[in-house]
Amino acid sequence: MTAQPFVFNLIKEQGAARAGTFTTPHGLIETPVFAPVGTQATVKAVSPAQLAETGATLVLANTYHLYLRPGADLVAEMGGLHQFMRWPGPMLTDSGGFQVFSLAGTRKIDDDGVTFKSHIDGTLHRFTPESSIAVQEQLGADIIMAFDECAVPDDLAYNQAALVRTHTWLDRCVAAKKRPDQALFGIVQGGIFPELRRESARYVAALDLPGNAIGGLSVGETKHQMHEMLEALDPILPRHKPRYLMGVGSPEDLVNGIMRGVDIFDCVLPTRLARHQAAFTAAGRMNLMNAGFARDSRPIEASCDCYTCRTFTRAYLRHLIVAKEMLAATLISIHNIQFLVDLVKRARQSILDDNFPSFSADFLASYKTTSHKVQT
Amino acid sequence: MTAQPFVFNLIKEQGAARAGTFTTPHGLIETPVFAPVGTQATVKAVSPAQLAETGATLVLANTYHLYLRPGADLVAEMGGLHQFMRWPGPMLTDSGGFQVFSLAGTRKIDDDGVTFKSHIDGTLHRFTPESSIAVQEQLGADIIMAFDECAVPDDLAYNQAALVRTHTWLDRCVAAKKRPDQALFGIVQGGIFPELRRESARYVAALDLPGNAIGGLSVGETKHQMHEMLEALDPILPRHKPRYLMGVGSPEDLVNGIMRGVDIFDCVLPTRLARHQAAFTAAGRMNLMNAGFARDSRPIEASCDCYTCRTFTRAYLRHLIVAKEMLAATLISIHNIQFLVDLVKRARQSILDDNFPSFSADFLASYKTTSHKVQT
Repeated sequence: MTAQPFVFNLIKEQGAARAGTFTTPHGLIETPVFAPVGTQATVKAVSPAQLAETGATLVLANTYHLYLRPGADLVAEMGGLHQFMRWPGPMLTDSGGFQVFSLAGTRKIDDDGVTFKSHIDGTLHRFTPESSIAVQEQLGADIIMAFDECAVPDDLAYNQAALVRTHTWLDRCVAAKKRPDQALFGIVQGGIFPELRRESARYVAALDLPGNAIGGLSVGETKHQMHEMLEALDPILPRHKPRYLMGVGSPEDLVNGIMRGVDIFDCVLPTRLARHQAAFTAAGRMNLMNAGFARDSRPIEASCDCYTCRTFTRAYLRHLIVAKEMLAATLISIHNIQFLVDLVKRARQSILDDNFPSFSADFLASYKTTSHKVQT
Repeated sequence: MTAQPFVFNLIKEQGAARAGTFTTPHGLIETPVFAPVGTQATVKAVSPAQLAETGATLVLANTYHLYLRPGADLVAEMGGLHQFMRWPGPMLTDSGGFQVFSLAGTRKIDDDGVTFKSHIDGTLHRFTPESSIAVQEQLGADIIMAFDECAVPDDLAYNQAALVRTHTWLDRCVAAKKRPDQALFGIVQGGIFPELRRESARYVAALDLPGNAIGGLSVGETKHQMHEMLEALDPILPRHKPRYLMGVGSPEDLVNGIMRGVDIFDCVLPTRLARHQAAFTAAGRMNLMNAGFARDSRPIEASCDCYTCRTFTRAYLRHLIVAKEMLAATLISIHNIQFLVDLVKRARQSILDDNFPSFSADFLASYKTTSHKVQT
């Protein structure tokens, strides 16, 4: 028996932090949750069996990439994204909008949609709210996202105009959506401008969708601005709907986001860092290429229960890196994903135990942050 | 209770083909056996857990590579090769000789040993029979190999001189070896010259080592020459010792080798082909990049029980290749290794069932061979 899909059950709140569950046709998501990113229908360097072993539940894939390659019609013909990449759990696709604005070549935005050039072969394509939904329906993820305009975050006039378009496009996405087994989330935009963000949140909330997302907060604004924005949105976004902070996921961002009422996160950071030899630890990032690890027989993190930490030494991982062996990226990716999955699980448990303030304060005090820019 | 190590139990012979077991300190090897190659203390793109799932028992690592990077002293300090790379089963190291002759830069051979330049950084190094054994004792594999001279196979005068050196070096390896938990195998050389090969086999056999190897038959001679050589050696090499044909392992070579009395094989072919998008099937090699597979919902091989074939379609594998995703190499490597492991297991079972002639004839009739050159 599967529970009614897309029901968000808010089990416990502590301050703004929340612990809950969200049901999907492919299983239950315990929230807060961190979703690793499988851009091209694979979490880079990690097999679905290895991914499942990290404890990951929700996995994201990118509509822009899959639309271009192998094509959404091909994925649909192969039984949809879950079947194609063999991820049996819940999945989420973005709308393609963010990548059109960040990756694709020369583009033309009009009120109807966006024309763009493929970053792969330069061919011309067009996304509209309707076509983004159609593509996401072909891909078949459990959670799909509204097609929005990702404006430069600190240009007020641009954000005002973009927000009008984003809201109109959201209405068109709602109207275009057909599949009952997919949940459409709206996206709050508005750049770094609190009044625009609040206006957007009110607009999105009023549509009473199964979940609400916060976009554009992973692309250049400061941590402080991100925190202020989340605090401004917390009272407006409905409590009984999951909240998804798009493209965010450093360890400190996850804890700070949970503290401010976020339920769902996704980020390429764990796998991208892994391909650059960096591992998460409770004390901060560790660059495993460091010569000091050459004869270090400890695991990355003694308290970590991932396959990599249960099995391999830092010395071995450094050897794989120096010897340019692909297994390095796989093993560090496994660790980094499980680190974030576990961190969010521990945060969830601390909320259930009425202990989140101390859990988050302890974590943030010991974790040495590193500035970074991420991009989905 | 571990059985007495390095006992070869010859269970059954059918013609020259043999089924047996060989005990090592890290477990029993059922022979014939195919050993995947973990050159730099990792079978490329495959984790030890994934490797174990293929059914592989014996794994090879390369002394030359590990001596240069990370260094045999470091591996020893980390508890030896099994512990370092976390392969719990039997392991074999070559002597480094083959790579010195095939990979390293400018070198000088004298009666005492070989001076060579690292292919990594050009630094000068020297291997002697004694130092090769010392390095292999630091690495700690179950089976270690004598240091030999790998001559150009079709130069008679060179092979005559090299053979004298190889036999003298073998004696020095036997004298230098100290660890009782390692089995030293001698290596039959002699190029393409049957009389030299027979002379070498008699010399090596007389030393009564726990196993005997046949070197230099994977580097340019024809299949026909390889078969003739194996047939010439079969009556000379002791029946009650395992025979290892070094660096050989295409599917047809395995079947032809087993037919001619070989017990142990190793080859980089399954993983190297995988990184070039080619998969083994019972009908021959399949290039998964082929556009014809774009919408093919079948596994690589319907009868294959590997993780890749149980889980993924050709369409998905082709997508991973086209999208340049690392997971492609991992998944095809898993299949190719298990294909060879299974092939050799089925050959073994057919020997036990008195059915090897029909098994091998059927396999060779349906397998479309592809010419190739391999190199360990």
